[in-house]
Amino acid sequence: MSYKLTYFDVTALAEPIRFLLSYLEIDFEDNRFQREQWPSIKPTMPFGKVPVLEIDGKVVNQSTAITRYLSKKAGLAGDDEWESLLIDIAVDNIHDLRQALASYSYDTNEESKAAKYGPLINETIPFYMDKFENIIGENNGYFVNGKLSWADLFFVAVLDYLNYMAKIDLLEGRPKLQALKETVVALPQIKAWIEKRPKTDL
Amino acid sequence: MSYKLTYFDVTALAEPIRFLLSYLEIDFEDNRFQREQWPSIKPTMPFGKVPVLEIDGKVVNQSTAITRYLSKKAGLAGDDEWESLLIDIAVDNIHDLRQALASYSYDTNEESKAAKYGPLINETIPFYMDKFENIIGENNGYFVNGKLSWADLFFVAVLDYLNYMAKIDLLEGRPKLQALKETVVALPQIKAWIEKRPKTDL
Repeated sequence: MSYKLTYFDVTALAEPIRFLLSYLEIDFEDNRFQREQWPSIKPTMPFGKVPVLEIDGKVVNQSTAITRYLSKKAGLAGDDEWESLLIDIAVDNIHDLRQALASYSYDTNEESKAAKYGPLINETIPFYMDKFENIIGENNGYFVNGKLSWADLFFVAVLDYLNYMAKIDLLEGRPKLQALKETVVALPQIKAWIEKRPKTDL
Repeated sequence: MSYKLTYFDVTALAEPIRFLLSYLEIDFEDNRFQREQWPSIKPTMPFGKVPVLEIDGKVVNQSTAITRYLSKKAGLAGDDEWESLLIDIAVDNIHDLRQALASYSYDTNEESKAAKYGPLINETIPFYMDKFENIIGENNGYFVNGKLSWADLFFVAVLDYLNYMAKIDLLEGRPKLQALKETVVALPQIKAWIEKRPKTDL
């Protein structure tokens, strides 16, 4: 099988896919383009967005769907349907935080954007991050059922992106999430990926 | 098993869950609250949001994760992992349109909101809806692989909500999507649900 991942030259929404491909020890073409190339690439993408993954010539979009698909192959998508549900819930809770951050970060109206930052920093971020910290505390250091799942890899993979949008270190004062990050980045395949991946700001 | 679904007295994000429970012929408590009750209910919800589904006393949030879970029981979540991927992609593509509509509809800054409507109506909506119309045309009247899946039920379940936010009839001039809607609402269990559900504007 051949795998080609197309995205901007950043971690963000492609990094969960890169983490899973790396975890599976699948060789993949990490096709990164520069921002000025995007207008010419965008019309060629299935829904005008990236990342997309090409698997043996078949192009698929939607990063979370792709990550879930790869997670099943990795044995990280739950041992039964209930566990798969709990993992999907954890991932979508993380997405809700991501979307709150994105709603601020990508807002092009200066007045509207400025009005969002206070509630984001004082309410939304502590609300989600404290919930996550508690969940990790109650689950033996992981998001679901006391063992590694793709929810853990997903969280750590998008963390730089979340921090970038929040403009703060989301893990500060949250030792259990800090420990989860250390667990994930110490997985041999993830460690190897992080060492070899291009160094980018985001 | 006992099922209790808690949500506002509207279709929106709870309706895919109601469709799947109905399709499965599962009796469920359809616990609807009024908008003025929300401030007192919100703090009791796992992540401060609804819908939530209580299954034998276990409360779970995240409507899409719940709908996927129920779809597996209904045999509507794909016959293999690739098909499950394609269904997940279809659902997340619909979510992308929903989020573009929500970004407009829920914007509290009048200037920002007004600036979004033109691009939404002239670009985003035709882009997604025409893609969906083509996909249905290429797939024998369904979203994925020429047969009914939870992507089809999901789309029809949220359609009233999408139309409400768009302030237009998204199916106008799109006969294949119109036919898909007719197919789904003619499924005996969905037909029975639509006949008996509370009549609401949204």
